This record gives sequence, C-alpha cells and structure tokens, in this order.
Amino acid sequence: MTLNIGTAEAMHTDTGAFAAHPRATFDTGARAAAATDRSGYEPPTLPDAVVHAESVEDVVQALQLAHEHHLPVVPRGAGTGLAGGSSAHAGEVVLDVSRMNRILSIDPVEMIAVVQPGVLNAEVNAAAAEHGLFYAPDPASTAICSIGGNIATNAGGMWCAKYGVTRESVLGLTVVLADGRVLHTGRSTIKGVTGYDLNALFIGSEGTLGVVVEATLRLRPRPVRTETLAAYFPDVEAAGRAASAITAARIQPSILELMDGPTLDAVDRAEGTRHRELGGAFLLAQTDGFGAHLELDEIASVIGPYASTVHRAGGADEAAALVKARRDAIPALEKLGRVSIGDIAVPRNRLAEAFTGLEEIAARTGTRIFSVAHAADGNLHPMIVVGPEESITSGPAKEALGEMFHLARRLGGTLTGEHGVGLLKREWVGEELGETSRSLQQAIKATLDPSGILNPGKAI
Amino acid sequence: MTLNIGTAEAMHTDTGAFAAHPRATFDTGARAAAATDRSGYEPPTLPDAVVHAESVEDVVQALQLAHEHHLPVVPRGAGTGLAGGSSAHAGEVVLDVSRMNRILSIDPVEMIAVVQPGVLNAEVNAAAAEHGLFYAPDPASTAICSIGGNIATNAGGMWCAKYGVTRESVLGLTVVLADGRVLHTGRSTIKGVTGYDLNALFIGSEGTLGVVVEATLRLRPRPVRTETLAAYFPDVEAAGRAASAITAARIQPSILELMDGPTLDAVDRAEGTRHRELGGAFLLAQTDGFGAHLELDEIASVIGPYASTVHRAGGADEAAALVKARRDAIPALEKLGRVSIGDIAVPRNRLAEAFTGLEEIAARTGTRIFSVAHAADGNLHPMIVVGPEESITSGPAKEALGEMFHLARRLGGTLTGEHGVGLLKREWVGEELGETSRSLQQAIKATLDPSGILNPGKAI
Repeated sequence: MTLNIGTAEAMHTDTGAFAAHPRATFDTGARAAAATDRSGYEPPTLPDAVVHAESVEDVVQALQLAHEHHLPVVPRGAGTGLAGGSSAHAGEVVLDVSRMNRILSIDPVEMIAVVQPGVLNAEVNAAAAEHGLFYAPDPASTAICSIGGNIATNAGGMWCAKYGVTRESVLGLTVVLADGRVLHTGRSTIKGVTGYDLNALFIGSEGTLGVVVEATLRLRPRPVRTETLAAYFPDVEAAGRAASAITAARIQPSILELMDGPTLDAVDRAEGTRHRELGGAFLLAQTDGFGAHLELDEIASVIGPYASTVHRAGGADEAAALVKARRDAIPALEKLGRVSIGDIAVPRNRLAEAFTGLEEIAARTGTRIFSVAHAADGNLHPMIVVGPEESITSGPAKEALGEMFHLARRLGGTLTGEHGVGLLKREWVGEELGETSRSLQQAIKATLDPSGILNPGKAI
Repeated sequence: MTLNIGTAEAMHTDTGAFAAHPRATFDTGARAAAATDRSGYEPPTLPDAVVHAESVEDVVQALQLAHEHHLPVVPRGAGTGLAGGSSAHAGEVVLDVSRMNRILSIDPVEMIAVVQPGVLNAEVNAAAAEHGLFYAPDPASTAICSIGGNIATNAGGMWCAKYGVTRESVLGLTVVLADGRVLHTGRSTIKGVTGYDLNALFIGSEGTLGVVVEATLRLRPRPVRTETLAAYFPDVEAAGRAASAITAARIQPSILELMDGPTLDAVDRAEGTRHRELGGAFLLAQTDGFGAHLELDEIASVIGPYASTVHRAGGADEAAALVKARRDAIPALEKLGRVSIGDIAVPRNRLAEAFTGLEEIAARTGTRIFSVAHAADGNLHPMIVVGPEESITSGPAKEALGEMFHLARRLGGTLTGEHGVGLLKREWVGEELGETSRSLQQAIKATLDPSGILNPGKAI
C-alpha cells in the first residue's frame, strides 16, 4: 500500500451501534459487495457494516447514529465510480442508497423530473423519452450508474459538449446533513438567486458534505433532428487537431468523441467491428436541432483536410452503431485487464499535445495506455490497463497517473474533468488547488461536517 | 424607515483607519456618488469613505485594513444593482472596483476572456464580437453594468433563455477574501471537478463572501444565423399562455421576452414607437443556429392561435429595433417616476397566472405595476413606479413587493430570479429558504467572513 487511506482506521470506531438500524447488515458478503467501485482499487479491508436505506428516514436515522457515535459513513449508489470515491474500509459503515430508486414524478410541460438517488441514469432517460424529453448528462456508464453518484461527481458524458454537465441539469436537491438534518437546496424554477448556491456546493462533493436523497432534474426537449458522422485519421494527433479545428470554427456539436488506435483495436476485438482498418484514430461527431444537417456539413468540411475517411451515418441505426462503438470502449478494455481510468481536462486547442504527451508517458513508464476523449470539452480519459496481479495504486500504473496529472497541469488543465478525486487522486489535489483554496475547502467541510464522519479521506 | 439597515451602524466603527489607503477618499461628493444603486433605495446616511481601487493590491490592502480594524466594507462596481446590494451607510466604507476595467486577454480559439471586474458587460461583448464570439449573460443594463456586479448577482438577461445565466459563463475567479488573502477558484478548462465548486459559491453571493478582482469568462460562437419575430396579443394573459405553449412545444428560443400593455405604452411614449396600437401585450422571440428560420416557423405556428398579429423581422435592422423596444422598457418607466423592480421567477407554465396575480396586487395596493418577463425562464420583472415623494421601502410599494413574493411562492416560484436579494428583499429570504438552509448559509458566511465585515446586512 502506498496510499494513506484516510482517517477512518485511526478512529477505532465502534460501529456496533449500527445494530440499532433496521436496514443495517454485518454480513460479510454484503460488506464485500459494498467495499469498492469500478476504479480498480482493491481495499485492504472490508467496511464493518452496510445500511441498505430504503427511505429518507432510513438515511436520517443512519446519520443520526453516525453523528451520535462519531462513526464514519461512506455514501454509496450504484458503485460505478472510477476514483475510489465510494470505497470503504474497516471502521467505516457504507450507507447504500441504491434501493431508493424511484422516479417520483415527471412534469412534461415544465420539463422537470423528481427522482430518488438510486435511480439509474438510463432509467431517467427512458422515462423522459416517453414525453419527448431527455436528461443531458450521459456518462458512458449510463446503463449502470445512478443519479446520486452522477451528482456526487458532477458527472459529464458525451452530450455535455452542448448541454453541460450534471451541475447544469440539477435544479434542486434534498440532502441529509452529517447530523441528520434534512436540507433542501435550489428550487424548481429555471432561475433563482435567493441565498448562496448550496446546490452547486453539493454537486461534485463526492459524499463528503451530505447524502443526496432526492433530486429535481432539468429535462430538455429531444432534438427534432440529429445527424452523425464518423471520421478516421492516420493518427491520434491528426484527430486531435481536427477536433480543435471544429472548436476553433465555432461549430457546436452535440457529441464530439475521439478514440485512439489501440482503443479502436480493443473495441474491434470485443465487438467484431472493423473500425481500425479505416484509420489510426476515430472521431465521432453529432449535431442536433433544426439545422443539424447544415451544421454537420460544416464539420465535415472543417475536418476534411485532416481525415483519411469521413463517413456520414445513413440513418438512425447506423448512427446508433457509431455511438455504441464509443460506449463500448471501457467494457472492451476491461476484457484486457484491470483498468485505471484517467480523467484529465486540458484547453481544447491542446488536445493533440495531450495525446502526444500520453504516448510519451506510456513509453516512459512501461504502461499500456488507451485513450478516448470528450473532445469538445478537452476532457481525456487515458486508460491504464494492468494485469490481474499488478497494482493500480503503486508501481508503474501509479507513476503514470501522476505523470498524467503533471501533463494536464503543464497544458493548463486539471486533474479531473468529471470522475472526481475520490481516493486515488487525492495526493495531487493540493498542488492543483493551492493552499488558500484548499484551506477554505477544508473550512467549509468542517462547517458542514464538524466531526468528519462523511466519506473521510476522500475528495479534498 | 421600516428597514433595519443591518449591523454596520451598530458597530460604531472607526473608518478613519482608511486614511492609510492611498486610494481612499472622504470627500462628500464621492461618498454621495457611491451611496446607492439603481434600486430606488435612498440610504438615510452616507458611507464614511470610498476606496477607488485600481489594482488587486489596492483591494488586498483595503480588506487588510478592514480586517485589522473590523470595518464593514461594501463592494461596488458600476452601481446598477436593483436590490440595494451595493447601498452603503454611515460606518461603512465603499470598496469601488469600477476603475479596474480592463479586458486582460481574449483567447479566440479557446473562447475565453480574462477580465477585471469593472469592465462593462457590453465592452466584453464588443471585444468578443471582433473574434466572432459573444458573452451570453446580457442584462437589460448591458451598456452600463459591470462584470463584477453581474457575478455578484448571478445576472441573467435575454439570451439566458438558451445559454444560461452568469454561473454558466464563468469558468474561474480571483477573489480577495475578507482577511485580504487572494483565492483562485475554478479553472480555464470547460470541465473540472477538483475540490468543491467555490466558483458557484461566490457567484450570486452579492459581495458578502469576497471581492472578485478577476474573472475568466466563457465566450461562445456568434450564431451563424438569427431570426426574430414580434407578436401582439389582446392581453397579457394570452401572451403568457403563448409563451408557455412555446416551452411546452419543446422549442428552444434564444430570446423570449414579454411586455404588458402599460409597459408598451410607456415605451411608445418615450421612443415615439407605435407598438401599443397593435395589441395589449408584446412577445419578442428570437431563434439562432443553422436552423433558426425553421425553428422560428415553429414558434409562429405555435403562438398563432393566441396572437392578434405576428410580425417577422425582415432583416437585421428590424430585428434590432424589436430587441431595442424590450431594452427600452426600464429607461421608459424611469421617465414616469422612481422604479422599484421586482424579479420573481415561477414555473414556466404559470406565467399567465403570475400576470393575473400582479394585476390583482396593483389593484389591491393601489400601485402602478408594469410588467416584463424573460418568458422562457419564467422570470418576471414587475416594476412598481412611484412618485418622487413616495417611498419604495414603506407604504404601498413595499406592500406590493411583499405580495409579489407571496404570489411567486404560491405558484411554486422564488423571490429573485437574477437581481439578488440585496437590502430590499431580505425579510422574505428566511421564509423561502427555510431554517436549515438559512442557518447553513450563515455558517458558511461565518466561515469565510468571521468578523462579518463584507457587505453586512445584505443577501442572507
């Protein structure tokens, strides 16, 4: 272990107090199932107990117990996080809200959904689709990730190229605070500035400030028309330059996704497709709205000089197959080994440099790095694939993760675009934020959670 | 006086310490000029001094002095606020940043501007336009309001129908804290989730948490095409129903502005136009993007059943004249008397009810209320016009303001959509936020400004 896993183990807590909670279990299987997420991180110990909350009252009761007995609590949704944010250890209790998974209401005229935190992202979208609406944040894990986790990490996805991240689609929250009080943030109108923006404070706070038990989501009209193309390039630098050229040409794609050659290979192998034959890098572009076809013409024209092949989807099925190729990237890599997913973001005109830098990092550290990017946001996901016996928290994988961070900083970017800091990226947070910001953040944490019982050792 | 003007006067402060600041003046004219904003509020006393900061260092020095001597400071930009947020009183020192008015850099490829707080909103837009870009938040006061004030109130405007409010267009801030420390929030990439969202915490905090001295703004590509129409209706309820129908039809206008008959009258009288002849209410709709003409067709078709006249602008000049009619509303009313501007927001399908409710409030309180609305956001600006001898902080005008708040709440809305709470709306904040939220907000305020020296008695 090269990671200091935080303060929980030092607390010598008596989590036996949770026996008083009707939804608590001390069963080893349940504890093992709730111990980590999809980051590849393997905790050295198991949490002491799991509370499977089924109601706001269950969450309140859990936090009242934790507050009274000073017990550390790790909030958990679907467990699909990529930074160890919901990993848990001995001395900690997992507060799992995945059974709070109902869509409470949809107002199709006002375009608002009120949901519980455990509902899956794709379920919200399916329900919205019945009213001609959609929910914009669409992480690659849409089918398996929950809204509560999306809020905890301020999740993004493909559509945020045009529609923004989770923060731009959450109007209000109900949050249970560290002492069990219930807080309502935001509102159900589009605009509002009464009081400080506590909504935004909780979004992206990775379960360290409170537990979200209800969310009012902003839905949007499904576009009247979408148009899709895939372009193939000799190499990833050319694709990166093409993506930057789209931004510079002031076009607003609704999706702009880039995959490098090694990732294309992996997808082809897993899915039986033949993308890699067409080029060493792949760019997926989608436009939407009344003029989608005209806007896609512009994209085709701008990337023409860089691309070896530009292929316009002939219809909805073909478009869906191209989008699926991008969504298949992570599952395809997971077949090759354990995957540690980076999440750096850089200024959009430095994408090509970022890809070059990642190739250098792979060579220098002797790691295998596969890269995809939400190119319109400058958000790259370099994925380090290690063998079953290798660690992602020490050795070359850890070294590569650190170098990625420094690459992002050198290009004017950030450690994490949309996955969060969790457990795995904490050591670089201080360097990015600087002393004043970090001390202020810690002061805010201390104000909301004076005993430090909420997800200790994570995020900041 | 029915307003408790806050804690400053009770402090018995010795603002003479500010004589040590090289940019401080105790001149009566300067103090009078910095005493209030455009809310119509007339402070009973003048502030003790004004610091005309010209640099970050000037702001740091001012707050170090204030911190050391426990002196209350009222941050001030262009002084165009509409809620008394920058009004100042005896015992207080105004920290005026309007001379920090430079655009430091524009990156046309990355579509980012770095600016000082005193630069005017319209100046940012003019500079962005040279690169084919625009800055989306566009308050009616764009020609005279500054970016610092826009950030302090999370200002909106017409274009936020499509592009969101100030929060969605600010990527990063430099803020001087209450003790003089300099904080950097956010980043210069589009995405990023390292640490809590301090950016959003400062945006809309009305100068109570820190003084913004630099902002990194997100610019957007100027649309390739815009299309504009004006529609006239028998009455404001019909116009409200038409606006709600556009929302319900899932069209995304870039501008959707509504004016009632009395406001149209005032504009016609001030500008020599003849809008009122065409109807008892006016709706301005603009679409943009590659399919703007197709999207405007949809709008025309949806509002047809409600409208008496639908007039499509023939060209850019005519479109600009229609937009100008809406921008002329406040100046036209200011010719009729002192104006107290409401700022309620309601769910978008309750616009017509809101207009009816406002007419009832005018009748019941004996006030003259003129109403305009950012209809796509459900954000109404009911403007109470009083005579030169009448007060806006007591009597019928005050009563009407209170009734507006209760109307908004009854319709599921909020006290303030984009102008802020300032001094004039504080008494309703507690009722809207509830006890838990308010106590948490006060705790955050106490964490960032333990001595309570920043804009005391405002906002929360």
